Amino acid sequence: MTAHALPLVDISACSTPLVREPLAAAQAVELSRTFKALGDPTRLRLLSLIAAHEGGDACVCDLTEPLDLSQPTISHHLKVLREAGLVVSERRGTWVHYRIVPEVLDRISGVLAVADR
Amino acid sequence: MTAHALPLVDISACSTPLVREPLAAAQAVELSRTFKALGDPTRLRLLSLIAAHEGGDACVCDLTEPLDLSQPTISHHLKVLREAGLVVSERRGTWVHYRIVPEVLDRISGVLAVADR
Repeated sequence: MTAHALPLVDISACSTPLVREPLAAAQAVELSRTFKALGDPTRLRLLSLIAAHEGGDACVCDLTEPLDLSQPTISHHLKVLREAGLVVSERRGTWVHYRIVPEVLDRISGVLAVADR
Repeated sequence: MTAHALPLVDISACSTPLVREPLAAAQAVELSRTFKALGDPTRLRLLSLIAAHEGGDACVCDLTEPLDLSQPTISHHLKVLREAGLVVSERRGTWVHYRIVPEVLDRISGVLAVADR
């Protein structure tokens, strides 16, 4: 079993809502990488396919058919999501499985929120 | 008074959390435009300067100094934020004022949220 569980982007310092105080330059750089990863329709659909899959965990074999894209294209986009810390991957037997990182999604959600949670 | 109040991107159909159901292709395209606009550190800092400014409304004259960038550069980034529907602008006398669109920020925040609000 090979686990790739360490996101390369640490956005833990970026969870203060935008409306509360201006982002520092370093926080803005970190956060912009995450948003850049989300700024592609295929990656958004992949992320939502994984997130909405039972248990927030999907085999790469569940992801190719709904998007009708080649395996290398899917793999490229999954790599970008993984490097942004939005998903983690784990090999189980033949297939690689992906799952979302709820804390990261909630953190960036919190940065954008205006209404009190 | 000139008001530029109509965002070019309508993301009203994109507010269902990613974890609840997979995004449709058209929704993903709309939403990815908004995230692309957020995928730049200068634009994120501009957005947070506007959002954190008193009343969520800032004169363009309040935005140039903190970022130490030229007026044309600032204007370019503000235009991208405006076209993404994240801010609206209004001329008042000499200066153009920008304010955030809370509903848009809350909507994209809601798409990313995993924890119940």
